Amino acid sequence: MTKTFSGVVSFLTDYGLDDPYVGEVKAKMLSVCREIRVVDITHSVEPQNVLHGAFLLYLSYRFFPEGTVHLAVVDPGVGTERRGVVIATRRYWFVGPDNGLLYPAANEDGIVGCYEIELEGYRRYGGETFHGRDVFGPVAAELACGMRPRMREVDPETLVKLELGKAEVTESRVKTKVLHVDRFGNCITNLGSEDVPPWLRTGRQFRVRVGGRELRARFLRAYAEAEPGELLLTLGGTGFLEVSVNRGSAARELSLRIGSELMIENVEQER
Amino acid sequence: MTKTFSGVVSFLTDYGLDDPYVGEVKAKMLSVCREIRVVDITHSVEPQNVLHGAFLLYLSYRFFPEGTVHLAVVDPGVGTERRGVVIATRRYWFVGPDNGLLYPAANEDGIVGCYEIELEGYRRYGGETFHGRDVFGPVAAELACGMRPRMREVDPETLVKLELGKAEVTESRVKTKVLHVDRFGNCITNLGSEDVPPWLRTGRQFRVRVGGRELRARFLRAYAEAEPGELLLTLGGTGFLEVSVNRGSAARELSLRIGSELMIENVEQER
Amino acid sequence: MTKTFSGVVSFLTDYGLDDPYVGEVKAKMLSVCREIRVVDITHSVEPQNVLHGAFLLYLSYRFFPEGTVHLAVVDPGVGTERRGVVIATRRYWFVGPDNGLLYPAANEDGIVGCYEIELEGYRRYGGETFHGRDVFGPVAAELACGMRPRMREVDPETLVKLELGKAEVTESRVKTKVLHVDRFGNCITNLGSEDVPPWLRTGRQFRVRVGGRELRARFLRAYAEAEPGELLLTLGGTGFLEVSVNRGSAARELSLRIGSELMIENVEQER
Repeated sequence: MTKTFSGVVSFLTDYGLDDPYVGEVKAKMLSVCREIRVVDITHSVEPQNVLHGAFLLYLSYRFFPEGTVHLAVVDPGVGTERRGVVIATRRYWFVGPDNGLLYPAANEDGIVGCYEIELEGYRRYGGETFHGRDVFGPVAAELACGMRPRMREVDPETLVKLELGKAEVTESRVKTKVLHVDRFGNCITNLGSEDVPPWLRTGRQFRVRVGGRELRARFLRAYAEAEPGELLLTLGGTGFLEVSVNRGSAARELSLRIGSELMIENVEQER
Repeated sequence: MTKTFSGVVSFLTDYGLDDPYVGEVKAKMLSVCREIRVVDITHSVEPQNVLHGAFLLYLSYRFFPEGTVHLAVVDPGVGTERRGVVIATRRYWFVGPDNGLLYPAANEDGIVGCYEIELEGYRRYGGETFHGRDVFGPVAAELACGMRPRMREVDPETLVKLELGKAEVTESRVKTKVLHVDRFGNCITNLGSEDVPPWLRTGRQFRVRVGGRELRARFLRAYAEAEPGELLLTLGGTGFLEVSVNRGSAARELSLRIGSELMIENVEQER
Repeated sequence: MTKTFSGVVSFLTDYGLDDPYVGEVKAKMLSVCREIRVVDITHSVEPQNVLHGAFLLYLSYRFFPEGTVHLAVVDPGVGTERRGVVIATRRYWFVGPDNGLLYPAANEDGIVGCYEIELEGYRRYGGETFHGRDVFGPVAAELACGMRPRMREVDPETLVKLELGKAEVTESRVKTKVLHVDRFGNCITNLGSEDVPPWLRTGRQFRVRVGGRELRARFLRAYAEAEPGELLLTLGGTGFLEVSVNRGSAARELSLRIGSELMIENVEQER
């Protein structure tokens, strides 16, 4: 517990912004400590899709200042025996349900300690406990302000692990999966930049198989290097391979969504 | 006017987040006083639905620190003779149009004073006055920073009153109404936890009538206590009875929306 | 570079709020300087529609305190040779791509200096540079905290200019264009309040031509002065002529959207 306290809390959920839930969590955090700064990552994780939330947190946690408390809640198991946890990593704190949501990010940053939140120490309001507002929010605010939450140390090995799933890469093909579709229709896959094979980086025209269709695409440095309407493969600002259409929507044109599979074959195609 | 000043402003409207209106109000508030912290409750109140806004404010106001200024604008009567008001309550301030929007929350917290805003004291911009930006926002910022807005005391009895409407509860049935539908399809009704009759709390299977259909549901402590796909009745984190489907959407499956009526009958049903 | 530093950054993009991009930019800004306050104008600019973004920025920039840094990114040309710029105006800073997005607002406020950002001075992350997060955000944060970004002065005459397009006004008609449609279905046109001709301000019933249809509408001071469901012309809080339906949606009823043309004729119509 010797980490710098940044006073910053990042906040990611599947609550959406139409309901008052996000505001209620922030209200409770401010009640604990007036000095915190909350930065929303997103509240549009697919409802109860832990893998989707884990991927978005994994993409974004790294841009926050050291000492940030990452508060994340996607929690289909609320009301069951799943634990609430605080994970201390090399540079950050992570707070949320112990269902794998925090794991890929925390694991990459380097886990240095793990704590189980003593739920009974946090007062519920109304009917059922709303863990985001009544437990996780207050715990995150306490950490961000240098207070010690009610929690006990546990073995990090007991954490529920979740793997984002690596793309399969060979000399002849890449088999990858869409983990997020963004507003522009860019489809972000699980092929990280460090795993992109040299043959893919050549700028040739490749065969792409998706949902029974065969298409052609080039690997380019930027969206704007493609012709308007052209399908391309690129490493976007996320650091993962994206399937995109310049000034168009790859998701719409290829009917891709979260979970869609995609094969890129090392076969040069005629234009 | 001896309340603690928290510097916190809560903000609820029907402006949505796609237009620049919410940002413009915040800009004007910061121009009045740089020290305030604004927490959005929601800006997705159904356009011009005062009852919907009043319910969401009522659900959320209580989680904010003492001294918070609650700024709320859902204002179908803007441009007419409706007043702008400041209501001082036991722990908070409320600022907005005098159309009932603020009433249920302010009344529950305990009204201790009421003021009419002197509209002519606030400079409009452009064509028509945008009351949220040109009047209510600046007034809220003034209060949050301990300044006195241009306003004159009036009798709280002159406030426009609005009742959220209580559920009808008897030994044989509960007749209730949906006041909000959340992102997960949970339908939050006007049956407060304190009014839930003992017979409903038994965990038996009840008959539920909605829109000509007959269904069965149990009253459970948490969503996750139901089978996946099972209809249930629960007191969610709101403190009001919710009609939910575990890992599904009650709103979609029962075609419920704001205003839908629902009857729960004290008749045990075969499973 | 002698302007007051307000510590306030306004933020407008076409990123949407569902993706983690807005949060990542804020994270990087906080990493540069912990003292800034970010106010979102909107992130719902039509994807890659520079004119739409320029109009919304133009409507809103004026409400922010002096010294505010206006950070705006709508950037279809990212990855090409388009420059990143900082524009110093009489009261503000503007930061973003040099594609016209910043121009109408900056030009109205009065340009006093112009700088090209030295892109190579800002470290990218992952595959391709995400200019909002890796360049423009950090530059805005540096300005807001009184630091000097890596940039070199250039001639303001080299800026890409963009005109919002004025309405055509004669004695017999006004030909105008919809630049924004808001949540309430109000259609905000490019006819500024100062250009509204005296004949239009008379409150008579005018002929409105749109998409082959002929309708009638009055110019009124406020939405609520019209009958419920009545089509009206008004100067909303934006300072631009709006086509509205009291308690209804003009966009839906007249099938209007961004770019739609509209003719108002100085012909009195029978009611």
